[in-house]
Amino acid sequence: YRLALLPGDGIGPEVVQAGRRLIEAVAGALGHEVIFEEHAIGGAAIEAFGEPLPEGTLKAAREADAVLLGAVGGPKWDRLGGNRRPEAGLLGIRKALGVYANLRPVRAYTPLLGSSPLRREKVEGVDLLIVRELTGGLYFGPKRREPIDGGTRVVDELVYTTPEIERIVRLAFDAARKAGKGLTSVDKANVLESSRHWREVVERVATDYPDVPFGHMLVDNCAMQLVRSPNQFGIIVTENMFGDILSDEAAVLTGSIGMLPSASLGDGPGLYEPVHGSAPDIAGQGLANPLGTLLSVGLMYRFSLNEPRAEEAIVRAVNRVLAEGYRTADLAGPGDRISRTEEITDAVLERLE
Amino acid sequence: YRLALLPGDGIGPEVVQAGRRLIEAVAGALGHEVIFEEHAIGGAAIEAFGEPLPEGTLKAAREADAVLLGAVGGPKWDRLGGNRRPEAGLLGIRKALGVYANLRPVRAYTPLLGSSPLRREKVEGVDLLIVRELTGGLYFGPKRREPIDGGTRVVDELVYTTPEIERIVRLAFDAARKAGKGLTSVDKANVLESSRHWREVVERVATDYPDVPFGHMLVDNCAMQLVRSPNQFGIIVTENMFGDILSDEAAVLTGSIGMLPSASLGDGPGLYEPVHGSAPDIAGQGLANPLGTLLSVGLMYRFSLNEPRAEEAIVRAVNRVLAEGYRTADLAGPGDRISRTEEITDAVLERLE
Ligand SMILES: CC(C)[C@H](C(=O)O)[C@@H](O)C(=O)O
Ligand SMILES: CC(C)[C@H](C(=O)O)[C@@H](O)C(=O)O
Repeated sequence: YRLALLPGDGIGPEVVQAGRRLIEAVAGALGHEVIFEEHAIGGAAIEAFGEPLPEGTLKAAREADAVLLGAVGGPKWDRLGGNRRPEAGLLGIRKALGVYANLRPVRAYTPLLGSSPLRREKVEGVDLLIVRELTGGLYFGPKRREPIDGGTRVVDELVYTTPEIERIVRLAFDAARKAGKGLTSVDKANVLESSRHWREVVERVATDYPDVPFGHMLVDNCAMQLVRSPNQFGIIVTENMFGDILSDEAAVLTGSIGMLPSASLGDGPGLYEPVHGSAPDIAGQGLANPLGTLLSVGLMYRFSLNEPRAEEAIVRAVNRVLAEGYRTADLAGPGDRISRTEEITDAVLERLE
Repeated sequence: YRLALLPGDGIGPEVVQAGRRLIEAVAGALGHEVIFEEHAIGGAAIEAFGEPLPEGTLKAAREADAVLLGAVGGPKWDRLGGNRRPEAGLLGIRKALGVYANLRPVRAYTPLLGSSPLRREKVEGVDLLIVRELTGGLYFGPKRREPIDGGTRVVDELVYTTPEIERIVRLAFDAARKAGKGLTSVDKANVLESSRHWREVVERVATDYPDVPFGHMLVDNCAMQLVRSPNQFGIIVTENMFGDILSDEAAVLTGSIGMLPSASLGDGPGLYEPVHGSAPDIAGQGLANPLGTLLSVGLMYRFSLNEPRAEEAIVRAVNRVLAEGYRTADLAGPGDRISRTEEITDAVLERLE
């Protein structure tokens, strides 16, 4: 396999290094040969090449079987204009790879129930999947500034086409069918024209999935229901910005966003990244939680490398490590001993079957 | 005083009726004369007049000292086109009255801590205010559909001008100064051009408030932080759609969205409404929680009728009723006796000092 590693900024390099060690271990066990291509993205690429998504990075990603990304961004580059920022590198690679479906599973890990801000009985058993549209909407619509009397008029366009909506909705229905769960489509159809069209497409696609229970939910209500009773959800499908907000909200239900993996899928190579950001405040100190990245490697084995059993082994190893009491700083409660990034990675590798 | 009552749909009429009784009681105590003008809005207006915001409703609202609104919307009208829906009545009256600042206080009521989905220690002491921009952004930008190959291209524009941002930001800084609290401005500046301009305006206005601590937060992070540690927030200011999502999310922290009041302010009459929706499933059954509306009447006394002491009396009466164990269905835990809308309203009125 040829894998592109894009560490990025902040804690990105530390967690991607953990991911690399896991891939080496799994590949060793399966007798695979893996070629790693490591490239800069985001702020790191701005420093080295003057742009957040250099041609060489993009080429390596395109030619890879899968891409593992850390995180991008940091205060150092916050003053830069829109398409010169680190985030432009992330948005650029998502768009260039055409990974329109961002899957963010949120699972309650029993040993971590105590570190959820929610009452144990609210969060116990949560196992939901957010399917976020990733290459459309406000993120990629035209943006402009126009001078007006007394200042500026600034516009971001929220744009969707029928085929863009249809492919993500189908993917979500397929995921729901496969999981034997219900689908909730989240929109703001009482206000947005794009949401009203989204709802029409969902209704039409739903006729092909009579066996999948589905419903619509307004985004404001969903933001509330995720806290009120997250167990009601199976698969959630929504547009890009709503998915960004709701998945970060859902991330915290289970204790720490540091636990959350993601897979971004399209027709070419898949892009795998932890849901957390670059956390510049703790970068380089060995404090980062690598589990979101290790679980993202799991998703890579499932979706891009066709080794679902490797994913299962990774999930089991992570569960064992948590059950044995290993905690990174973000997961630790009062009195817990804190493991560093490397130590908890070692622990996962040792428990891989 | 001349007050416009706009009951609207679902449980709207029940809660506005409770609000009316409270206003009558307070006016009686203060020796005020109040003239009520009751008018249809939303679905009720569609039924009676064929449009969600009839001219007579708007005229009465414009000529009133303040407007009390229940809620709009319901499944019956969900298939109607954008500007013929009940919600168009609500958006229309907000725009017509120019109420650009929507204030949504979120307060933890000690007797209700047990019904929060969050652990008691997380939610205890929460007392935050969301200042939501209410007449701009995606809600009021141009919307369009264009035929394309294979379907439709649909666009909602997120539009803000400098003066629109500046006035809401100033109002939020004023509120923060008055409350002696910090201000958090929430945006998505790493993706949206409108957010980058928002941030510029906040930075500039902040120089006039050197005594107010303030910071920026990305909306996805804020959605997470509200659940993780809501106590970190004093005043939050944000654009229309983010405010819609975050305020519903925040609403549930304290037990039930049924408790939350709101005030929408501009240069003319203020608009007061509970944050909850029309809840068609329980409409007409006397099950609605009127406390969000009663507290909205409190805000009306503070902001439009210049009687802050009336608000304090209302808040005290609500607190006493909760402390004595009165619970509407949405607030009740296992074993709690459930009060009907009228009963809990009576209880509040009896305890008004
Ligand atoms: C860094 C940022 C541009 C990105 C997004 O908004 O998509 C991040 O929040 C995410 O969710 O992956
Ligand atoms: C009914 C709807 C249009 C409205 C909104 O989105 O503003 C509601 O959710 C609210 O928050 O008042």
